[in-house]
Amino acid sequence: MAGNSFGKLFNLTTYGESHGTALGGVIDGCPPGIALDFNAIQHELDRRKPGQSAIVTQRKEPDTVTFHSGIFEGKTTGTPIGFVIENTNQKSHDYSHIKDSYRPSHADYVYDKKYGVRDYRGGGRSSARETSCRVVAGAIAKQLLKDVEITAYVSSVGTMKLEKPYTELDLSKAEDNIVRCPDMDMASQMESYIKKVRSKGDTVGGVVSCVIKNVPVGLGEPVFDKLHAELGKAMLSINAVKGFEYGSGFHGSTMYGSDHNDAFNNDGSTKTNYSGGIQGGISNGMDIYFNVAFKPVATLIQKYETIDKDGNTVEMQGKGRHDPCVVPRAVPIVEAMAALVLADFYLLNKMYS
Amino acid sequence: MAGNSFGKLFNLTTYGESHGTALGGVIDGCPPGIALDFNAIQHELDRRKPGQSAIVTQRKEPDTVTFHSGIFEGKTTGTPIGFVIENTNQKSHDYSHIKDSYRPSHADYVYDKKYGVRDYRGGGRSSARETSCRVVAGAIAKQLLKDVEITAYVSSVGTMKLEKPYTELDLSKAEDNIVRCPDMDMASQMESYIKKVRSKGDTVGGVVSCVIKNVPVGLGEPVFDKLHAELGKAMLSINAVKGFEYGSGFHGSTMYGSDHNDAFNNDGSTKTNYSGGIQGGISNGMDIYFNVAFKPVATLIQKYETIDKDGNTVEMQGKGRHDPCVVPRAVPIVEAMAALVLADFYLLNKMYS
Amino acid sequence: MAGNSFGKLFNLTTYGESHGTALGGVIDGCPPGIALDFNAIQHELDRRKPGQSAIVTQRKEPDTVTFHSGIFEGKTTGTPIGFVIENTNQKSHDYSHIKDSYRPSHADYVYDKKYGVRDYRGGGRSSARETSCRVVAGAIAKQLLKDVEITAYVSSVGTMKLEKPYTELDLSKAEDNIVRCPDMDMASQMESYIKKVRSKGDTVGGVVSCVIKNVPVGLGEPVFDKLHAELGKAMLSINAVKGFEYGSGFHGSTMYGSDHNDAFNNDGSTKTNYSGGIQGGISNGMDIYFNVAFKPVATLIQKYETIDKDGNTVEMQGKGRHDPCVVPRAVPIVEAMAALVLADFYLLNKMYS
Amino acid sequence: MAGNSFGKLFNLTTYGESHGTALGGVIDGCPPGIALDFNAIQHELDRRKPGQSAIVTQRKEPDTVTFHSGIFEGKTTGTPIGFVIENTNQKSHDYSHIKDSYRPSHADYVYDKKYGVRDYRGGGRSSARETSCRVVAGAIAKQLLKDVEITAYVSSVGTMKLEKPYTELDLSKAEDNIVRCPDMDMASQMESYIKKVRSKGDTVGGVVSCVIKNVPVGLGEPVFDKLHAELGKAMLSINAVKGFEYGSGFHGSTMYGSDHNDAFNNDGSTKTNYSGGIQGGISNGMDIYFNVAFKPVATLIQKYETIDKDGNTVEMQGKGRHDPCVVPRAVPIVEAMAALVLADFYLLNKMYS
Repeated sequence: MAGNSFGKLFNLTTYGESHGTALGGVIDGCPPGIALDFNAIQHELDRRKPGQSAIVTQRKEPDTVTFHSGIFEGKTTGTPIGFVIENTNQKSHDYSHIKDSYRPSHADYVYDKKYGVRDYRGGGRSSARETSCRVVAGAIAKQLLKDVEITAYVSSVGTMKLEKPYTELDLSKAEDNIVRCPDMDMASQMESYIKKVRSKGDTVGGVVSCVIKNVPVGLGEPVFDKLHAELGKAMLSINAVKGFEYGSGFHGSTMYGSDHNDAFNNDGSTKTNYSGGIQGGISNGMDIYFNVAFKPVATLIQKYETIDKDGNTVEMQGKGRHDPCVVPRAVPIVEAMAALVLADFYLLNKMYS
Repeated sequence: MAGNSFGKLFNLTTYGESHGTALGGVIDGCPPGIALDFNAIQHELDRRKPGQSAIVTQRKEPDTVTFHSGIFEGKTTGTPIGFVIENTNQKSHDYSHIKDSYRPSHADYVYDKKYGVRDYRGGGRSSARETSCRVVAGAIAKQLLKDVEITAYVSSVGTMKLEKPYTELDLSKAEDNIVRCPDMDMASQMESYIKKVRSKGDTVGGVVSCVIKNVPVGLGEPVFDKLHAELGKAMLSINAVKGFEYGSGFHGSTMYGSDHNDAFNNDGSTKTNYSGGIQGGISNGMDIYFNVAFKPVATLIQKYETIDKDGNTVEMQGKGRHDPCVVPRAVPIVEAMAALVLADFYLLNKMYS
Repeated sequence: MAGNSFGKLFNLTTYGESHGTALGGVIDGCPPGIALDFNAIQHELDRRKPGQSAIVTQRKEPDTVTFHSGIFEGKTTGTPIGFVIENTNQKSHDYSHIKDSYRPSHADYVYDKKYGVRDYRGGGRSSARETSCRVVAGAIAKQLLKDVEITAYVSSVGTMKLEKPYTELDLSKAEDNIVRCPDMDMASQMESYIKKVRSKGDTVGGVVSCVIKNVPVGLGEPVFDKLHAELGKAMLSINAVKGFEYGSGFHGSTMYGSDHNDAFNNDGSTKTNYSGGIQGGISNGMDIYFNVAFKPVATLIQKYETIDKDGNTVEMQGKGRHDPCVVPRAVPIVEAMAALVLADFYLLNKMYS
Repeated sequence: MAGNSFGKLFNLTTYGESHGTALGGVIDGCPPGIALDFNAIQHELDRRKPGQSAIVTQRKEPDTVTFHSGIFEGKTTGTPIGFVIENTNQKSHDYSHIKDSYRPSHADYVYDKKYGVRDYRGGGRSSARETSCRVVAGAIAKQLLKDVEITAYVSSVGTMKLEKPYTELDLSKAEDNIVRCPDMDMASQMESYIKKVRSKGDTVGGVVSCVIKNVPVGLGEPVFDKLHAELGKAMLSINAVKGFEYGSGFHGSTMYGSDHNDAFNNDGSTKTNYSGGIQGGISNGMDIYFNVAFKPVATLIQKYETIDKDGNTVEMQGKGRHDPCVVPRAVPIVEAMAALVLADFYLLNKMYS
């Protein structure tokens, strides 16, 4: 209930604060007999980890995962998979200045009001460092899903936007540059832009797009737990996300039904795909695609006024090593959450077999 | 698991097909001692019901709710509230033509693939008629929430968009016109537009916006069950929804952090509200606001080609009484789902008291 | 959370008070394509209903179930099955005397303390009348489970106890007498005994035993959701139940390991079955058997002193039509709950397929 | 769903195999602001740990818990509490003989059938070593519950039974002897008995009784999640448990209503307490008491025949360090599970405040 678990049959529970000794989690419900590719898991963590490139936070953290259970002789056993990611780079002294003050657009204020106490170091539980655990579980979910291909990429940074639909892009190029944008020219411009923003101590938002191919027909439950509703919740649960749209999305709201309807081919596929691979909350076998909007990171390397816990105005100075733009590192997180949603519905759908 | 329940502590389970004998539901977890205003509940149903105005479906359905339990001498007792809405206007013979064929952008195809059987009459379970049950539960949730004010309204129809932010609108006017747009001029244009679309047998999408005032600080759980993640899931679970954004939303992804951060006033409120009343997934006491994108209704009163269940091409003719634009009737549904989310977190937050 | 739902994948939610207009429920997660035998469902209700014989309450209630959804052309569709059982025999005026007083060993006092309000008529929600809904769902679960045979019977009434193990009984005889004891001599003695107890306005407890044959190997989840733990919870959730034991049960606690261990046959079956068909929380394919202890019904047709809600001593007189011994009518309820548990694990086990 | 989580609001998820690198868990939903007594937590682990006395397994395992999160400056923060207990004493080579064979009355066979793979070392996930994690969480739950006193003790070993009701015992004496029986004479006899059983390489069952004092009125949800139903499930989920009874229990099934009913005192307490502190599934403020039956441990230090995974007869020899009687070490586990159930309902009950 307290919101640190995700998924019904393929269930992830995470724990850990930004500057505690370790983060970790438990995956309960992973089917037995999966021969895990541990390199693939670490690869996903590396895609998310800080310090990986010149345009992300320069904090160094190896993000190595240790598995404690649920795996025997390299295979999942069907019992819960417990894992731990140690925090090797805790610099708690950096954070004493925010002990009694509330940074704007951070969770400091609401945590204090809700809980009456908070681990103020580095944002504590509200830090995006928690998403490292999601990436571990997502990497395992991907291995369960086998042929399903989940590919996320950066489609916009600030006002700089990739206008082409995904069908006209070579998505495999997304990992060829540090922005993770599949258009190399655009990627290069975005990189320069992010560097410029950072040089001012500022930050900028962006959009991550995601495409899922080879989804079996029938995933998703009608009514409340529609496939796109769970995908939406999953994405909105990622730090800094402000919006989610799938298929035709917000643009679809401007269209006529006569343009928007996806006519069938004789094999059950559709000629167009405004539906985004989902009809009535259930996958129809076409590509699923969606966009996730991220706000600019709230931590600026600038001076600003804010309040302390008694309501007094105080001056603060943003410092430390932060991301000027979160979307390049968000790409593997978006994929991980998508994998968790699909793995859950994949198992649930067996109920109907 | 099968997706017909919503909420943890304030939990709604619904059942019912479009053309069965009745729909209904159970609200489990409504606290005792609430003196229910039954007129207010029926009023919400009337706002959603078909046949209410010239721009919605002309199907006649009184949508009267009967309560079976959980209420004694006008007050909730803390035991589950069972309720039934009878289908008085079943015209099953209208639907025999879709028994073996799949309408484009409807759920016919995926239901058949997932379940191997479907109640094809009027869309069966995939019909938006199910939302009548949500409106009943939402109306009760509103009464639990007392001072919290939830107001949804139509902010765009097709490309016709209300550009003003909600803070410059008199939201109380939304119910003064049949479009449910608080700007009377815009409402009038939208009405004409919808009528024109309908005259062609076509449909058009739109956007419902929602504002929630007087939300206590502290609602929402961090990590997976963020307040906006649950609101997003709730909205995306409504039929025909393609997108959700809150606060600065997709526009926020184009902004700089230095513009987007919400500076604090000394009382803990913020000078701007790009955060949309939620920080780190937890309400901060400022107004919550969000947009919900609806696609155009898939049923057109036109001839079209599609396939039958054997993959043969067949010609169909849309008929019956359908909404040319779903957003005017979606307004109370958006409010109901928002109320369910807030009621759930309101109860959950008592855990911390 | 509020406790009116049971089961994860095969989920039942019930509502309804003893003297409201109706009780009902929703079964969510029933797989599609089951051709329901409606007579079999009504038959189970008839086994539970009041007035069925000379040794149960003489209240008359037909307990007819109406299905509203989830069934189309006689088959389940995979969508939720909503159902209603009307209360045709409400005699609210009978209960005014308990409006402000608390009957001993009833739930009147705790409901008032917990909720601050209660529907005092006939025990309201705490009445065993709620179990009629369980019987409906259990009857459907039985049809899902096909070859699994669930047979409950009365094994003791008061101190009168059937000492033979179930393997020496012809369980098919249990339905041949109104006590539901498979030993006809014992049944006859128990019948006389119950009548004698009733003639004094008194009540007596008893034990229902249950045997489940043809259970597939592998049902049940290790650790918290062991098969016998869920069976135990299911049985203890039935009104008036005070204890549960399976396999060797309490007697097993007096045994040596060298006597208690169940040696294997070469086909994986076991020579003895002290384990009761469950090892480590998972079914092993042997018969599951367990006992459920019921206390004597609290309502006596006698004069007694108790307190009112202000703590004053008041004199009351038990009246109305009550069961002198609950076990004959509890037999189908025990079976229904066992069926619900097994159906849930049966579906869950598909996850591993 | 896969059964490794317990509790709704106060939720524990555990992981870990007997001979993996570590076991651990996550407590989600522990309220903030509790100043934890870490010595008290370790004390509970010490009460459960192997090697603590002459009548339990002589395996040495320090069972030290490390907390990773959810605690800041000694207080709970409201975020999930992740913890790890390392396995320092892994002797995997001891277990190669059971790799391909199934020990009678163990879970080897059913794990293989259910999962197709198993960590055979020391029982893997089916080992009672998992309960160390429950003891950690239970110790924290106890601290949340403050004044509620939960005391378990050994009331029988084999046929040796403490006949006195708990009201005539000085329960504080239970921890004064290694059997954990509050009657010192009986404890001494039980100790000799257990030693004699062990000397033969045999094992014996027993009963743990538990008394809970100072329970607030109103805990427990009616219908499915009755307080005693959840207590029953909790106890039955402990390894080797075969039965549960509360209040008058199985004996109550032999009684007349006129003897069994608990007459009220004017303050709402009752003159007798056959109800066991629970009426209609809800605590009434009187002492809760219950019995939990444990079967004899299945591992005997004897030669025996069994089958391998191909169904061939094989001879095995029990070896290693095992408990001759599980009840002395089960006492803190019973208390821990009771604390988890009460903590959950304690938080849930705030919903009604």
